[in-house]
Amino acid sequence: MPEIDFWFSIGSTYSFLTVMRLPDWARERDVTLRWRVFNVRHVMTEQNNIPFANKPQKSAYMWRDIQRRTAKYGLRCTLPAPYPISDLPLANRVALLGLRTEWGIPFVRNCYRLWFEDGVEAGSEANLTEALHRADQDPMQVLARAQDPETVAALAAETEAATALGVFGAPSFVVRDEVFWGDDRLEDALSWSRLGHVA
Amino acid sequence: MPEIDFWFSIGSTYSFLTVMRLPDWARERDVTLRWRVFNVRHVMTEQNNIPFANKPQKSAYMWRDIQRRTAKYGLRCTLPAPYPISDLPLANRVALLGLRTEWGIPFVRNCYRLWFEDGVEAGSEANLTEALHRADQDPMQVLARAQDPETVAALAAETEAATALGVFGAPSFVVRDEVFWGDDRLEDALSWSRLGHVA
Repeated sequence: MPEIDFWFSIGSTYSFLTVMRLPDWARERDVTLRWRVFNVRHVMTEQNNIPFANKPQKSAYMWRDIQRRTAKYGLRCTLPAPYPISDLPLANRVALLGLRTEWGIPFVRNCYRLWFEDGVEAGSEANLTEALHRADQDPMQVLARAQDPETVAALAAETEAATALGVFGAPSFVVRDEVFWGDDRLEDALSWSRLGHVA
Repeated sequence: MPEIDFWFSIGSTYSFLTVMRLPDWARERDVTLRWRVFNVRHVMTEQNNIPFANKPQKSAYMWRDIQRRTAKYGLRCTLPAPYPISDLPLANRVALLGLRTEWGIPFVRNCYRLWFEDGVEAGSEANLTEALHRADQDPMQVLARAQDPETVAALAAETEAATALGVFGAPSFVVRDEVFWGDDRLEDALSWSRLGHVA
């Protein structure tokens, strides 16, 4: 039974930090996380929560903060990455398909690598095709399935589930009914799952 | 020479955490912080950065997150505290006067205590009067000086200085020309001041 649900959206910039550091982090702490994908843009638009559009100072800070923390975690990036991305739902529907089997996490990590290391916009055809290749999947076949109404409905259902839990941004971590928002709350979430409080 | 400038605004909710934990934190790490007050609402309004108004989910999360971290730091609070506060400039002008001498920090901490522990709105007459009493000041005299045009101009000048540094929210920490935003970036700021990177 996973201790922590990790809710993310391809398109979220801070999710880069979590997506890239999470596997090692979880292994070192012997903790199981369940990766769950949703459409954060849909939730944020519905809640009138638009943190960066038309806010150049805050946006510049975001990239600087991510850059500093990328170095802290020993990751690589070339910033700013293309932002915002234009087609967020398709990439997240692909991730959803992958998370049903074993290739979801490699796909998401490669999608972020291409976006943050190589400047290939997440969700673009080039990004999805290459990330699927790297995850050993057939892009034509997967992208066709990602357009399937069943897949569209499944991402919408996960987005509703996230909203019902109180998730309003990405990345978020949910432990039982407790929501932790932001890559910088990952340690709080682990503490909550083990101690019932933030240590 | 202080290593870190601590920029805050009475009225900022997350600044409660920093204001209350900072003196012990700094003593334990042998670090000097210079407390600097500005009018964050002015900056945020100018930058179209309104994080909580009309965002009930995000606001509810903010209080919960603050509550969890209050417990983590061994602080006390009764949440939610009155928010937003109606008269932010007056309280911050009083703080500015106090920070010129020795009673600034005791005043700010008592102002936050009254606001977060006892539900007495920061910046209200009851709040300022009692916080000044606790800081051994004469409220009548100080409140009169806080209305002085020189004091008004001084807070405006500090607000401009903060903006020029790239500060867009409170609390923020500035090390040389590097800005760190949020109580949860205090450790990053210290690391930057000592190592030149975030460890």
